[in-house]
Parts: sequence; C-alpha cells; structure tokens
Amino acid sequence: MTRPPAAIPPADRAVHVVGVDSGGSGLRVALGRVDRPEPVVTTVCAEPVRTGPGGIDPAHLLDQLLPAVRDLRARAGAAGEASSGGIAALAIGAAGMASLGERLRTELPGALADALGVRRLALAADAVTAYAGAVGQRPGAVVAGGTGMIALGTDLRSWRRADGWGHLLGDSGGGAWIGRAGLDAAMRAHDGRSGGSPALLARLVSVFGPAEELPGLLYPRSDRPAVLASFAPEVAACAGADQVAAGILREAARHIAEAASAVCPRDEADDGQVGEVALTGGLFRLGDPLLRPLREELARLLPRARATSGTGDPLTGALGIARALADGGLRLPRHPTMLCVHAEGPEKGENGDRERTATPG
Amino acid sequence: MTRPPAAIPPADRAVHVVGVDSGGSGLRVALGRVDRPEPVVTTVCAEPVRTGPGGIDPAHLLDQLLPAVRDLRARAGAAGEASSGGIAALAIGAAGMASLGERLRTELPGALADALGVRRLALAADAVTAYAGAVGQRPGAVVAGGTGMIALGTDLRSWRRADGWGHLLGDSGGGAWIGRAGLDAAMRAHDGRSGGSPALLARLVSVFGPAEELPGLLYPRSDRPAVLASFAPEVAACAGADQVAAGILREAARHIAEAASAVCPRDEADDGQVGEVALTGGLFRLGDPLLRPLREELARLLPRARATSGTGDPLTGALGIARALADGGLRLPRHPTMLCVHAEGPEKGENGDRERTATPG
Repeated sequence: MTRPPAAIPPADRAVHVVGVDSGGSGLRVALGRVDRPEPVVTTVCAEPVRTGPGGIDPAHLLDQLLPAVRDLRARAGAAGEASSGGIAALAIGAAGMASLGERLRTELPGALADALGVRRLALAADAVTAYAGAVGQRPGAVVAGGTGMIALGTDLRSWRRADGWGHLLGDSGGGAWIGRAGLDAAMRAHDGRSGGSPALLARLVSVFGPAEELPGLLYPRSDRPAVLASFAPEVAACAGADQVAAGILREAARHIAEAASAVCPRDEADDGQVGEVALTGGLFRLGDPLLRPLREELARLLPRARATSGTGDPLTGALGIARALADGGLRLPRHPTMLCVHAEGPEKGENGDRERTATPG
Repeated sequence: MTRPPAAIPPADRAVHVVGVDSGGSGLRVALGRVDRPEPVVTTVCAEPVRTGPGGIDPAHLLDQLLPAVRDLRARAGAAGEASSGGIAALAIGAAGMASLGERLRTELPGALADALGVRRLALAADAVTAYAGAVGQRPGAVVAGGTGMIALGTDLRSWRRADGWGHLLGDSGGGAWIGRAGLDAAMRAHDGRSGGSPALLARLVSVFGPAEELPGLLYPRSDRPAVLASFAPEVAACAGADQVAAGILREAARHIAEAASAVCPRDEADDGQVGEVALTGGLFRLGDPLLRPLREELARLLPRARATSGTGDPLTGALGIARALADGGLRLPRHPTMLCVHAEGPEKGENGDRERTATPG
C-alpha cells in the first residue's frame, strides 16, 4: 500500500500530537492537541529503553510506546476528547539519541507510520527537547544540568553544543562533578593533605560510613556517576560555613557559565551574545549555594543575555516540537542526529522559513 | 600433625625465600636466598588473580603460585643452587590487599605451611612492597605512581597513607588523572569553551579519532582508568609548547608533592619532615615535563627531604620483606591489613627491636 502525500490527514481530522521523553528513569509519553500548548494526558513507562551494542533498541521502545499511546487516546476519549482521527505528528527526545539513535532513525519512521499512521516524526537529542521545553522556538541557549551537564544554543540556523561529554571527559559543574570534587576534598582531609575539608569528611562518613571503605562501595557499582551526584547536595549544604565547599560550587558555576557562553547566539551587529539562557534540570535545585555564584558568572561572561529558569521540561519540549511539526511551524534547525525530521507530504516553514512553501500541508 | 616451633628449619637448611607481586597484569614470583639481596630466579604468571564478591581468591592465587615455586626451585637446583631444604619465609604483595585480602589472611598461612612448609608469611599491600623495594627498611616515604597514585610513609613505628583512592575519588596527579585532565582540555577546545587546548585536541583526534565519538569509545570499556592514563604521555609531549598541558603537569606535580608531604616522617626535635622520598612506578617515565615541576614542588613542601628514584620494584620489595622475616630483622611496622605477618616459633627483631628476642629463630 502506497501512502501518497494527499493521504496525510488534514489538521481538522488529526487533532492529536504525541511527545515522548526517553531517559534513564524510563519513558514518559504525552498526548496533546494540535491547537493547545498543554498536554491533554500523560503516562510513564518505568522501564528504561534498552541500549545494546547496536544502540537504542527500537523494538523495545515500540513495545512500550504503542500501548501507552493507545491508553492515552482511550483516556482522552473518555474525557470527552475526539478519539478518532490520526496523530498529526510525534516527537521523541532520547538520551543518547545523537550517538546511539541510528536504528531509531532507520526503523521508527516506517514502524510508526504502519502502527499509528504517523506521517510526521521528529527524533531529537534530549538536549534539544530540553531546549524546546525551556526556551521554545526562539534563539537562545539552554543549560541542562542533572548528574551531567550540557549546554545547547541556537540562532535558529544551526545548533552549538558544549560539554555533555560524561563524568570522565567533562560534564563540568554538573551533579557528579560537584559530588566528586566534594568527596575528593573529604578524602584529602582524611589523609591530612592540603585542600581538604573536615566538614565534607564528616558528611562523607555520615552518608557512606568510614572513608577508607568508600572505594569498596563505589567502584563495584554500575551507577557510579549517580552515586557521585548524590553527594552534591551535601556540598551545597556545607557551602555556607565551609570555604572548600563554597569554592567547589564557585568553580562549578564558572564551568557552567563557560559552557553557556560557548553556545549562546551572537548578535551579528556587534558580535555580543544576546538572548535567553535557560537553566533547567535537577542540578539547579541545589539552590542559592550554586545559583548565586552562577548568576554572577553569567553576568560576567554574558552581560547582555537574560538568565531564566526554563518554563517547560523535556516532555513539554517534545510535545511542542510535535505540535510545530504538525502545523508546519517548526523553526528549530534540523540536524542529522540532534533533530532528525521525517515528514511525508508538503510542509510549511522548514528552518523557520515560513514563506518557502506556499501551500499548507 | 602439630608443627612445634622447633620444627622451623634453621637458616642453614632453609636457604630460600620467596617474594610475590600480584597485580592487574598477573603474578610475578621471585626465589631468592636468605643470605643474598638479589633474586636467584623469577617467573611471571600472566593471569591476574581473580577478585570476586569475597575479595581476592586464595585458591586461584595458590593454583598459580605453587607450580611457579616448584618450577623456580627446580631451575635454582639446575643452576647449582641447593634445591632441598625448606622455604624460610614468603612475602606476598597484592593490589587490593588491605580492602580485599581478608580471605588471603585467613586461608594462606595454613595452606602455604601444608604445601610448601612455609612457617613465616607476610601479606602486604602493594604500596608496602613498593615501599620496601624503593626505600628498604629505613624511615621515609614512597610515591607509587602509575595509572593511579598513592603515597606511603613510615617512621618505622606506624604507616601513613595518602591518596590511592582510585580515579573517581583521588589518585590525584597519577596517570589517569593527567590523561583525564588532558582530554577535558581537548574537549573544551572542541566546544569553544575557555581553558581548552587546540594542541591536546589535535592529539586526541590523532589517537582516538573524532572528538565527539570519544564518549562512545570510552564509556563501554571496563578499563576506563587505563584508557585515560594512555593519554598522559600525549599531555607530557605537548607540555613544552602548550601552556594548558604544562599547567596540567604542574598541578599533577603539586598533588603528588602534597601526598608525599602528608606521609613523610617528621623529625621529633623540630617537627620538620626528613628522610628519603622515593618516586617509583611507570608514572615517572613521563620524564622532565612532570619531574621538573615535581622536584620544585617537593623542594617547596619538603625542603629537608631527599627525593630519589626508588632502587627496587615491588617484587624486589616482597623478596626483601621475606628475607627480613627469615632472619628476624623485619623493621617495617606490622599492620592488620597493610603488613600482616604470620610467624611460628621465636622471631628476632619485631618492629625494629632487634634486642627483644635473644634466641635466634
């Protein structure tokens, strides 16, 4: 069976869009309407999608996504929403999409067209859905911080990325980085080396037990970055009274601001950096001990940019990308691995050029 | 069958001692004579001793050690050495001995007495055999550097240890630390963040390929610290012309000197630190780019101590401990996990007190 462009349901029949956020804690799925910004219904599949030697497993993703979408459509129908008609567009943001998403990019367009009639699909890096959730479709930058730390910016022509290289190659200033620096300072105090913090050593012993037994607890675990990041709140709690802890958070703030500065779009007239820098993710729940030096570092490096807390999360961002794809208004730049778009039929507004295609899709 | 103290063969019959160095690259075994410092014959078992949930596996160690000792004694006999008589003492230095050696301490004394007639046994942390090889039985400190970094010092009354906590909690200034700092600086250059080194980025690309593919190469491996450490020579090679690389080695030197300073014995009269600081292990083969700043940092922190390159390796150290145990002259301090000694019968010179036991063993 061929699917000619004319078979794309018009927006008045395909009223729904789907956003997906796939990460280490599982799959979150939202069903929304083309004509409304907020989700109608959402659900969570607690099992993280498997990653094997061939990358993220498309079959394992579909095994969870398809029942979830059926369930969401049934719930929307029960709530008085139209449950018939197609899904106008679907967007998936996934951790590791850029480096481990090749099979998703190859197999999902056909599989989702067959199973759900989806003809417009976006496959995005989780940093891109974080951007879409926090900044929307405007130029700017996002810093997504949790266990790791990545900065992503765009002038709506191309993307710039800084860091996000993982706990051994970077993620400088993220949760694992802060926790590791805190534990290093604690072990220095234990050994009597300079640079040590007795306050952080006391926290280490309170959380993990005797310092000399921490290596035996940490190294056998497969979630070492998460274990390191679990100590970041202890560093923040000590920062008010402990100079070493305060210095760690000051250095983290500098690393984060440097990453934001590297990706923030530049004003063409004077080459200064402008726009919004959104801070999003669990890292910033460390609060003032991190945010105070971070605001100072951002003011120093990006005096003309505006730091904000992002308004929406990556799931909201995925739903927003799906909605923009459905109505032909996607302005965020396509990219072979970071924002890969599959669309059948005419489309409005590619790359923000809303005038290029005169015929509505 | 009981083994009374009188059953210990006197030194003129038990002419041989055995030293063992167990590490990540396998088991090295040396047979020596009680009355000569150098080994007579040595051998290598390429398979590293298994470490399981219960720690280092004594049966797996014995499976390799017993045939190796039989082979060494046969070779010594063929070379004209007396091959009869017992083994006067045996010393094993092992990576992880302190935290993972409980089963060795429980099971090996009986097993080695039964299999080889060994009545004097020392089980030592690899840092202790490194100390014994590099410094001998004098007060001082050793810095053992390779992928990791640990400093160990003694005044012959007790041991002091600094660092050696592994690549996520310390090992500051070691091979993995230097390599990681170099790769971090390379990724900064790739991203356009400050603190980056284009020279190190060029080396990264030359060694590993495209920078953005390095996380996919590194994180799936189980020998991540070794991969990081493999980049340390590139950092050293860049240090002559690259300020960032030179800064990394300067900081590594400071960390190493701080660890040495924390463990170096103090003169009781004026509390100044004295004695020998021996630098041993593959780390110092990085040469002048590390050694020049390290000599400066040691001169600053330990002006009255004498930095040397250790004369013997950990296998020589294990053999030296066995020889000292055989003739009752072991002066290095016993410790429940770092230097655990099992000896039947009278012994001379415990803890350097050569006068305590008048009767020779």
